[in-house]
Amino acid sequence: MKFTRPRGTRDFLPEEVKRRRKVEDIIRDTFEKFGYREVITPVFENLELITAKSGDEIRQRLYHFKDKSNRDLALRPELTAPVMRLYVNEMQKKPKPVKLYYIANCFRYERTQSGRYREFWQAGVESIGSGHPGADAEVIALAVKTLENLGLKNFETHIGHIAILRGILEEEGVDEAEQNTLMGIIDKGEKGQLEEAIKKFSKESRELLLQIIELAGDPKEVLKKATELLKDKENPRAKISQLKDILDMLDSFGVRDYQANLGIARGLDYYTGIVFEIYAEKLGAQNQVCGGGSYTLAEAFGGEKIPTSGFAFGFDRVLLALDAQGAFPQEDTVTKFLVVPTSSDLIRNAIEISTMLRCHSHSEVDLMGRKLKKALAYANTRGIPFVVIVGEEELERGKVLVRDMKTGEQREVDIKALK
Amino acid sequence: MKFTRPRGTRDFLPEEVKRRRKVEDIIRDTFEKFGYREVITPVFENLELITAKSGDEIRQRLYHFKDKSNRDLALRPELTAPVMRLYVNEMQKKPKPVKLYYIANCFRYERTQSGRYREFWQAGVESIGSGHPGADAEVIALAVKTLENLGLKNFETHIGHIAILRGILEEEGVDEAEQNTLMGIIDKGEKGQLEEAIKKFSKESRELLLQIIELAGDPKEVLKKATELLKDKENPRAKISQLKDILDMLDSFGVRDYQANLGIARGLDYYTGIVFEIYAEKLGAQNQVCGGGSYTLAEAFGGEKIPTSGFAFGFDRVLLALDAQGAFPQEDTVTKFLVVPTSSDLIRNAIEISTMLRCHSHSEVDLMGRKLKKALAYANTRGIPFVVIVGEEELERGKVLVRDMKTGEQREVDIKALK
Repeated sequence: MKFTRPRGTRDFLPEEVKRRRKVEDIIRDTFEKFGYREVITPVFENLELITAKSGDEIRQRLYHFKDKSNRDLALRPELTAPVMRLYVNEMQKKPKPVKLYYIANCFRYERTQSGRYREFWQAGVESIGSGHPGADAEVIALAVKTLENLGLKNFETHIGHIAILRGILEEEGVDEAEQNTLMGIIDKGEKGQLEEAIKKFSKESRELLLQIIELAGDPKEVLKKATELLKDKENPRAKISQLKDILDMLDSFGVRDYQANLGIARGLDYYTGIVFEIYAEKLGAQNQVCGGGSYTLAEAFGGEKIPTSGFAFGFDRVLLALDAQGAFPQEDTVTKFLVVPTSSDLIRNAIEISTMLRCHSHSEVDLMGRKLKKALAYANTRGIPFVVIVGEEELERGKVLVRDMKTGEQREVDIKALK
Repeated sequence: MKFTRPRGTRDFLPEEVKRRRKVEDIIRDTFEKFGYREVITPVFENLELITAKSGDEIRQRLYHFKDKSNRDLALRPELTAPVMRLYVNEMQKKPKPVKLYYIANCFRYERTQSGRYREFWQAGVESIGSGHPGADAEVIALAVKTLENLGLKNFETHIGHIAILRGILEEEGVDEAEQNTLMGIIDKGEKGQLEEAIKKFSKESRELLLQIIELAGDPKEVLKKATELLKDKENPRAKISQLKDILDMLDSFGVRDYQANLGIARGLDYYTGIVFEIYAEKLGAQNQVCGGGSYTLAEAFGGEKIPTSGFAFGFDRVLLALDAQGAFPQEDTVTKFLVVPTSSDLIRNAIEISTMLRCHSHSEVDLMGRKLKKALAYANTRGIPFVVIVGEEELERGKVLVRDMKTGEQREVDIKALK
């Protein structure tokens, strides 16, 4: 009986894994250069943690199940809630800021035709405890720097502030739950639906909201226009000045190429302050490779109220974006030497020589009993650059033949020289 | 509301993650030096794959659930079945041997008091397609070499051959299902239960089986005694000579410190040939850190009948064994420089200097607005070796103070020299 893998999941073959590990290494190195430290949380969490603050879109796509003691569990759909749970449980007493990162798989029951996968990877950070505009700026700078270090070209960073939108809604007396619903609609960019949902607002607020979410582009221009539009709204206006402080800090981090975009709302319920998204060219509708912002999630999880900023890369989409540029091509094997005995009597000698080579290099011995010609063809297919030919006559003189597969040249080498 | 993590799972904090990643790197490097290449399979598989060949013990401990389309899924309890499914689906046409490895998490609903975890990690290999005794020897040599490279001391490698046991049972007319049950009993070492289960055998077979599974120790002795005991049993005797061939090859791989142990049966149903286990000292009852052997699982999964050998390390137990030796102590932070402004006006300068340092090192800027004294205390707690103090007077002269936290010495440094 032939078995298939579950719908919406993927197997990764060696060439692709090698590439993914390389990209992971660069992300890890960049995160650590900024002082972030890795944590690992369980693949599944108690359902109540996951549903507490995740937003409807995610709640509808959970892998939810019961364990043998009838506990409700869910495969994690994202990492911010688990990492903040870990922080509240284990790290609240540590000196601030606590700067954590993760590179891990998540699970959502997506429609598979949309190019989304049911098991996908996120790489992200949470900077917990500062509250300084520099901390918000740092996470944005880190996201941008990581993509630069990966060699990604042609991406756009859009920065907004969700408290400006929430401030306008608050003045209309909209409660948090409805705010979250409206943020979801704004996030999806469904303008008709939004107009319908805010019909009951005063004409002034309605127009203001629709104008604000259209503001995008040069940061100075956007801030200027927003200040004008919000001249009578004290609370939202204060947030604009907060946004300006953060953008000033961002300049010091060396990040100058971005747009202000007040229409960014994010699909998750927990954002409270700055929000940002990064889009890569050539990815079509699924072009968002990063999303983040600031929030106060620890409090909702039973911890202290503490400011936090973070982001997550869609790891698979970052890879797609690099693909579209031809960056990080897949590559096979790292094996340097294939050791081939010319007769089956010499297999033990071949193993010994291969073991010797392995002290300083990557080496395999041919275990298929192939004739030399076939072994050479195999080395070619695998891209192994050198074949060590172990023959009786040479062995007696303490020698082997080493064949350079690129040039076809063969030369006799002293076995001791291989150590 | 405070949330807990699910029972039987773990959070890993930064110091522990750093340590796990180091151990992973050494395992990965050793596996790749032998020509094994990494694959990644989904965290969950279709239930039928997992139940097909896994053995009762594992089947009873599955995390089994249905997705929203009512498909039966299970979190993987081990990696050999998924990797062999991947091989049959994607890699059957590749030149042999196909040598694959994985380092991944698995899930079993264990009683938590026994020191087992419900999410745990395995690192293992599958060498598919050779059938040469050298291939069996290679996986054993690789397991031993990996533990050596990790610096593990005081471990014992026990090698047996399950076909010797199965051969004796076959001569008694015991079918495969019952063989598997008996192997499970032998694996657990429950002698009373075994005697009960084989009561119906001929006296001769009963005594033979009980004598064979007690044979353990010096390989030459064990093979000699087994050959004597099995002198009238042609099939099992042939397997002894196969085992001898493998042990000869193992010698060429440089592995000479092991015991032959014909009582090794393994808890999984799919083993057909050589089997081996590695035990670490000081781990108490849970002292097995590695188990493996040879099997023909591809066929059961709808592929060609093809010889395969492999093993899996219990990654967490390897770490415990290293712990017991004091190897790989946990370690914190890699941050080299903490940049601290002496007044809040200088935060942007501090960010710029920190960004500059980050071109070649790991650096953080203090984003808590701490006074210098508190910032120094923080650097101490985190083990950050250098603090860069950004003061107005020095800045004007293009300088900063760099404080060596170990010696307490401070010296003025040209900012340009930090690049």
